[in-house]
Order: sequence, then structure tokens, then C-alpha cells
Amino acid sequence: MATDQAQSDASEADTYEQFEERVRRISNIGNAAGILQWDQEVVMPDDGTPARAQQLSALSSISHELLTADETGDLLEELEGDTSGDLEGEQAAVVREIRRKYDRETSVPQALVEEISATASNAHPKWKQAREEDDFEQFAPTLEKLVELKREYANHIDPDADPYAVLFADYEPYIDLETAERVLERLRENLVPLIDAVQESDADLETEAFAGVSEPRSDGSEDGTSSGEFDDDDQEALARDVLDSLGYDWDRGRLDTAPHPFSSGTQFDARVTTRFEEDDLLGSITSTIHEFGHANYTQGLPDEGYGTPLGEARDLSVHESQSRLWENHVGRSRPFWEHFLPIARERFPELEAVSPEEAYEAANQVHDDNLIRVEADELTYHLHIVIRFEIERDLIRGDLEVAEVPEVWNDKYEEYLGVRPETDAEGCLQDIHWSHGDFGYFSTYSLGSVLGAQLYAAAEDDIAARADGDREDDRGPFDDQIREGEFDDLNGWLRENIHQHGKRYVTPDLIENATGEGLTADYFLEYVESKYGELYDLEDY
Amino acid sequence: MATDQAQSDASEADTYEQFEERVRRISNIGNAAGILQWDQEVVMPDDGTPARAQQLSALSSISHELLTADETGDLLEELEGDTSGDLEGEQAAVVREIRRKYDRETSVPQALVEEISATASNAHPKWKQAREEDDFEQFAPTLEKLVELKREYANHIDPDADPYAVLFADYEPYIDLETAERVLERLRENLVPLIDAVQESDADLETEAFAGVSEPRSDGSEDGTSSGEFDDDDQEALARDVLDSLGYDWDRGRLDTAPHPFSSGTQFDARVTTRFEEDDLLGSITSTIHEFGHANYTQGLPDEGYGTPLGEARDLSVHESQSRLWENHVGRSRPFWEHFLPIARERFPELEAVSPEEAYEAANQVHDDNLIRVEADELTYHLHIVIRFEIERDLIRGDLEVAEVPEVWNDKYEEYLGVRPETDAEGCLQDIHWSHGDFGYFSTYSLGSVLGAQLYAAAEDDIAARADGDREDDRGPFDDQIREGEFDDLNGWLRENIHQHGKRYVTPDLIENATGEGLTADYFLEYVESKYGELYDLEDY
Repeated sequence: MATDQAQSDASEADTYEQFEERVRRISNIGNAAGILQWDQEVVMPDDGTPARAQQLSALSSISHELLTADETGDLLEELEGDTSGDLEGEQAAVVREIRRKYDRETSVPQALVEEISATASNAHPKWKQAREEDDFEQFAPTLEKLVELKREYANHIDPDADPYAVLFADYEPYIDLETAERVLERLRENLVPLIDAVQESDADLETEAFAGVSEPRSDGSEDGTSSGEFDDDDQEALARDVLDSLGYDWDRGRLDTAPHPFSSGTQFDARVTTRFEEDDLLGSITSTIHEFGHANYTQGLPDEGYGTPLGEARDLSVHESQSRLWENHVGRSRPFWEHFLPIARERFPELEAVSPEEAYEAANQVHDDNLIRVEADELTYHLHIVIRFEIERDLIRGDLEVAEVPEVWNDKYEEYLGVRPETDAEGCLQDIHWSHGDFGYFSTYSLGSVLGAQLYAAAEDDIAARADGDREDDRGPFDDQIREGEFDDLNGWLRENIHQHGKRYVTPDLIENATGEGLTADYFLEYVESKYGELYDLEDY
Repeated sequence: MATDQAQSDASEADTYEQFEERVRRISNIGNAAGILQWDQEVVMPDDGTPARAQQLSALSSISHELLTADETGDLLEELEGDTSGDLEGEQAAVVREIRRKYDRETSVPQALVEEISATASNAHPKWKQAREEDDFEQFAPTLEKLVELKREYANHIDPDADPYAVLFADYEPYIDLETAERVLERLRENLVPLIDAVQESDADLETEAFAGVSEPRSDGSEDGTSSGEFDDDDQEALARDVLDSLGYDWDRGRLDTAPHPFSSGTQFDARVTTRFEEDDLLGSITSTIHEFGHANYTQGLPDEGYGTPLGEARDLSVHESQSRLWENHVGRSRPFWEHFLPIARERFPELEAVSPEEAYEAANQVHDDNLIRVEADELTYHLHIVIRFEIERDLIRGDLEVAEVPEVWNDKYEEYLGVRPETDAEGCLQDIHWSHGDFGYFSTYSLGSVLGAQLYAAAEDDIAARADGDREDDRGPFDDQIREGEFDDLNGWLRENIHQHGKRYVTPDLIENATGEGLTADYFLEYVESKYGELYDLEDY
């Protein structure tokens, strides 16, 4: 018996080793592709595309073949059939994650995957042209085709499920669509009146502190308007100051520019890109902080997990929770500007005319005429998301026709945001996602904000409790730290509660372990109501 | 019959298509690895190594498995067995190239390949430490192990062949070792007396035009010494001027810096790196021209061949012929400095004090105390190579013991170059190649120079013949063009005769087609004897 057990243990270990080797190979191919994509966005010369497309396609095919091979299925079955309890928690988590990918990729015929990919490739230029010519009709047939194909795709994965729920799970595998809907519904219900109140407010916020290009003022007036165009090299130096200040590990990353900022990589090499516009210094700072949040999560993944899901970030909402926590709860806070404005003034002496309070106000202004998602503020942003979510959900479920999209879009903007787009270019054609066939993606942006607020509140509670011995006490223990440029406690909490776990836990467990409760919009709403209530002098907030 | 033939044609086409798909996949993996290596050398953060090593290892394993799979062997046999004549020249060339790689990779046991790779990885730090401490003993056991392993490797590939010839063929598959030996022997015989004559010459060449760091001179003296340290940003701007001037295609490449300059990539994306040292402006210019030569070859490979050997460069000697042709025949020529010095003066006004003739002399000085290969001039360089070639050949053949290397090395330096290293650090430990297990590589540097001269002479003849209608006439049709910064005729000739063919022809055929004869040192010797005879006022040259 003892020998049998030993042999069974040995064979189990062998099976897991084989399995892990396969998983590591797939992961390394994916990470290699990540470098090629970074290269394409950041440094590749213009004419490199034909070769790069072939290289990425080869890596993607190899990865798909390795994942969906019979050997992978056999190994999964063998490991799942193990009832000896030898498969430890971490190993079981790796099996769970790969099983999920295996099931999805094997259930969709490769021909359909290729058709979706080809259709999306062709859709991109059509969408672009339709947007340029403000002509939805040009894009409509392609959008219809993509909706059909993605519905078919969902049907292969689970013919009995709501197809939109299946697509949503591509981006957010462990959060129920119902949870997402509940969160978005609460955002809509609470943000619409809050935005109304803000728009009716008489508060006179400083909105121009970082904007506008004007001559250097020589009259010594101090109306808070900064002057001059912002030089790219100085902006880059300032972006490096931002990253230095927040604790970015330069030995495991780098900063470059890209037209659409992103971050990518692994715990050993988590890179950030940002953008510089001469009349938008604030945009470059907040964009850099946002990407820092993503890269900082990646840098905090455990080294020893590299090559398996244990060393990979949880999904889109958790990633976005990190970027938004840093961008909004840190980067758009009053103490941050008390800390950072003196640093910024060393690069841009014209900011001497701006006070921390004015900078804080400029970073938190709520616009009146909000049509474009990527230009939205912290409040209106989520209504942009709610609109897209409702429309794409109904499209995929067959409750809405493609032809109806422009009018429904405009009606919803009028209803939720009080503005009606005059063109489709600034309406339903503004975003790239649908042209990629990405239905179900948008909501993760809002879920990320909501989770970011929930994590920040939990971190505040924990740190306050450590300091006071009383968990229920004071909020705001980070305010003094941020004012001093100290982020170790906050980041230590995130490392301990989120980053180090990789994909060890499914998302609801990760959130529950970190915050003591399930995903909830409570903390986000509390945060925005308190912040904007004070900023805009709102009576009922 | 007709139908049978048609079916056979169709099946042949299918077989070739399947084969080509496999070849393209292998090629794309290799090119993806090339991007990862470029990234590692140029932009990767310091701590990225552990992940990068795993990514490269995964790509290398996948490539090896695809190449050595039974399916590859079966497809090769089927295609080689085709006697219908349907396999056209280009397809036959692809089959030839893959067959060669397949045979080599399948004949060496994977365990041996891995042992060599692991031994070389460990050898590198040992070599580095031995060089730092000037202690050959520390490196000797590892070198012995590498020699043994590489001999074993050669024995697996062809047990009946000279093992050194087998290793040489890893770098230069289609040039006989005998041809290489004959060329190197001629270089030794002719360069030793030429260098002697140069060293005895009384000619007083300007050697300091670009060297030395001195205070800006205000006395208006014009002794040809340029002044000041050379700023990195200005050097980079000048390197861009160099590439602009020679016709580098920026839409298919880019320039960066790296500690050891290299070029890499594909016809769609052929990148150059260079280095800047504040006291070595000339070194940065010539290094940039050298790398331009490599990248220009890559940019000239046919687009439609991408993914197969038809779109890949011929081997090391042909590649080096391109870099040396541009570096030496163009970049170290009198007309080049007449063309380029005015451009350089715009970046470095201190070069006003330098005349084109002085720049030419500085770029062609022959040193007296030549111990270090990478610092060598156009003449002594090849004796450094001859010494390494003779020693590594004898080591691999078992005609020389590792313990004897230092003394034999020093003796040969004394005999061929008239200098004796005082330490092994500046003797047999100076180069990295053997620590990588690269035996057989060095000679391709000299073969490249020799071929570069042969190609340049043939191009001169052809262009002169086009102009005069008489192929045997005047040499030197490029002089006027280079003086005007016109490189289209020269590059057009290289495109037509070398670049566009990729690996379509084996090297001897490529050379014969381009120059009308086999590889010969005649043109190189003629070139250096004429050039240095004039520069150094040598009577017998």
C-alpha cells in the first residue's frame, strides 16, 4: 500500500510537471507576443507591419494548437480525476484556469475564430472611414456581421446561456453578468441625479489651471492660469518624476510614448507608455498615473509564479481597479497635488501661479457637454459605459437592430447626460471596440472604478486600524502619507491583498478576502458623493 | 494520363504548400526571437533577463521541434523524390536549404545540444573573470570541455569529415574550408610584408584628426587636431546623417545605441545599432557605416521571399562582405571624406580644422602596437584572424592542447605582427567567441573583407562598362559619385547581384554569377597594396 501510494504520488507529480511545462510554454509564447506588440506600438518602423502580422499570427497559432491539443485535455482530466488530495491549492488553481481556457478554445471551431478575426480586420478601416465621413450606414453591415458571428461564437461555448453573458465572461470570467448589471444600474441611478446637481451648482471651480496656451504673464497676476505650451521633453521628464514619486521599479520597466497609452509586460518587465500634448499637461500626468497603476500591479505579481496563471494578473476589472485607484483616489486627491505641485513646478515654473487647491479643482472638473467617453470626467464616465453596455447587450441578445443603434444611442445620451450628439461620429461611432468585435468589454472599465474605490476604502480601514487599533475608526490615513509622497503602506496593502495572488483565487474570492465583502458600488458612490458634494457645494450630498 | 499528371501536379503543389507553411512558421518564430534579442540588447530593463531567457528558450525549442519533426523529413523526401521537374528552381532552393538544416539538427542528440548550451552559459562568466584577473588557468578546463563537446558535435554530423570543417560549415555552409584556408594563407603571406613596409615607412600620416580630448583652440592654429569632447546627442545626429547620406530606408529600420553595435531584423524592419564614445567620433562613424552595410543588405532582400530562405541573407561571409564594402571601400575612401566632412562639420564645427585628406589619413592609419583585434586597422586585422583560425583549427583537430594556447598565441603575434602580448588578457583571452563555443566563426570576418573587395571591383567594372561600353576599362567610376554623395549605382548593383537573391543560390554560385569568378583574395590584396602603398609612400607597392 505504502509503495502504491508513493508510486501514485510520483506519477501525479510527473503529470503535473508535464502539464506545467506545457502551460509555461504557452505562457512564454504569449509573453513573447506581448513584446512584439509593444514593439509594434512603440518602436517598429512604419513598413514593418507585413512581417509583424505574420510573426504574431504564427505565435498565436502555435499557442492555440498547444492549448487545444488532445494532450492538454488528457493531462487536465488526469489531474482533475486525482482524488488523493495531492493537488495543492496553487496547482488546483492552475488547473482551473487552464481548464477554463481549454474548454472555451476547444468549443469554438477554428474556422469561426478565423472568420471573426478576418471580419474584424476588415471592419477596422470601415469603421474608421464611417467615422471620418460621419456615415453609420457604411459601418452598419459589418457591425451586423460581427454581432452575428459573436452570437454564433457564444452559442458554441454555451448554447443554453445568455450569449451576452458568455461574451462578457471572455473579459471577466468570474464575475456574474448579473453582478455587473446590478453595479451599473446603481451607478446610473445615483450618478444621473448627482451630475444634475453638479451642473446646477453655482460653484466656480478653477478649470483652466493646466489648460490653454497663453503668453507668459508678466503682470504678476495670480488667477491660477498657467501659461505657455508644454514642451514634450519637459513633459517626459515630469512623467518620470510621477513614476519615481509613486515608486515605479525602473529595473523592471521603462517609459515610452505611444499615441494610445498602454502598459504591458510581466513582473520582470512591466512597461508603461504615455502621451504628451503641448496643451494638455494634466492629461499626461493623469494618464501616466493610470498606466502606473496597471504596471505596478504587474510588477507586484510573484516572480515564482512567472509562466503560470499564478504569476498572471487577475482579469480586466481587477487590472482596471489598480489603474483607477492610483489615477483617481491618489492622483486626483487634494494631498497628491500638495505633494506633487512643487515637483511639477521644477519642470514648469509657470505653475508657480497655480495653487494646490486650483490644481485639485482642475483635475476634478465635471464637464457640461459630455459627448466623448475618453474625454469624460470621473462622474459622467460611467454613464458613457452604461449606454454602451445596454446597447451592446440588447444587440447581442437580439433585442435591438443594428439600424436602430444611432437613435437609441442619442436618446440615451439625452436621457442620462442631458446632451444629444449631433452626428454619429461623436455618437455611436466614437469608440473602436465594436469594430474589433469586442462586445462585453466596456463594463469592465466601470467595474474597475467601483472595485478601486472598494479596495481603497478597505486599505484605509486596515491601515487606520493598524495605527489606532480600531478598524472602524477614522477614514483617511493615507492623506498625510500622500501629502508626504509616502506610498509604501498603500502599495504594501495592494501587494499583500491583490498583487501577490496572481490568479490564485477567482475574482469574487479575491475581493472577499481583501475587503470582507462582495463587489459593491457603495464605496465608489460614497467617494464621489462626498468628493463632488464638497467640491461643488451640493446641499444634499 | 493527362488526369494522372494533373493529379500528381496537384498533389506535388499541396506537398510544397504544406512544406512551405511549416518553413514559414519556423522562420516567423526565428524572426520573433530576433525582435526579443534586439529588445534585450537595446531597450529591456535590467531585471528582465529571467523572463526573457525563458521566452527565447521556448521559441528555440518550438523551432527545433518543428524543424526536426518526422513530418518535415517526410515532406523533404517527398519533394526531393519528385522527378517530374515541377519543383522549380526557387522551390528546389528552399528544399535544399531546409534539408541542410534538418540533417544537421536531426543528427545531433538534443542532450548534447543542451549540454553545449549549458556549458557555454557557464563558460561566459568564467572567461570574463579569467580575463579580468589575467589568469588563463581559470578558463582552461572550460575551454577544454567546449572543444571536446564541439568535436563530439561535429562527429555526430559527419564522423568521416574533418571536425573543424564541419564546425566551419555551421557559419559558412557552402564555402569549402580549403578555400577559406587558401584565402587566409594568401592574406598572411602578403600582409606580413606589407605591414612591415608600412611600419618602416617614414610617411607622417595625420592620426589625430578625430582623436584626443583637448581644449578648444583659440589660437587659430590648423594642425588638423579637432578639439573637445564629442557630445552623444550630436554624435547620434551625425550617425543619422551617415545613414541618410548612404540611403538607409528609415521606413524599414531605426537607429539605436548598444554597447556592442549590431544590426538585425528582416527586409521589412532592418535595424541598426551603434555606439558613441566621447573621444572617438571616427569610431562611431565607421561603426555606423559598417552596420549600415549589414542592414542595407537585409533591406534589399526580396519582400516576396519573406518567411523562406529566398527572403533571407546568404551566410556570414556574404553578410560581412556588405558591411566591409561600405565601411572600407566607401567609408574609408578619399572621396567619401570629401563628401562627408562638410556634413560632419555642421554637427561639429571644430572639424573645420580638419581637411578631407587628414580625415582620410586618420581613417586609414596602421598601428604599430596591434594586440587587440577589435581595435585593428584594415591590414593588421586579418593577421588577428589568421592567428585565431590556425589555433582553433588545431585545437579542434587535436593537434594542439588547450594548455599550449597562450604560448602559441603569443609566438604567432610575435611572428606575424611583431608584437608579443605581455598578458593573456590582451592575448588569447581577449575575444568572447570561444566562450560561446563558437569555433569556426572568426574566418568569416576575413572572407567577408575579401569578398567585399571582389564585389566592389566587379561593380566598378560593370558600371564603368555601362558608361564606356568597355568592361576592361577604367577603374574608379564610383569615386565621382561618392564625392557627390551618390550611391544609387553601387547599391543598385548590389541589389541586383546579391541582395535580391536571398539564399536562392549557394554561395560559390552567387559569387560566380556576380563577379564572373570564384572567391579570390586578388582584389582585396590589390586594393590594400594600392591604397596603403600610396598612403605610406611604399616603393615596392
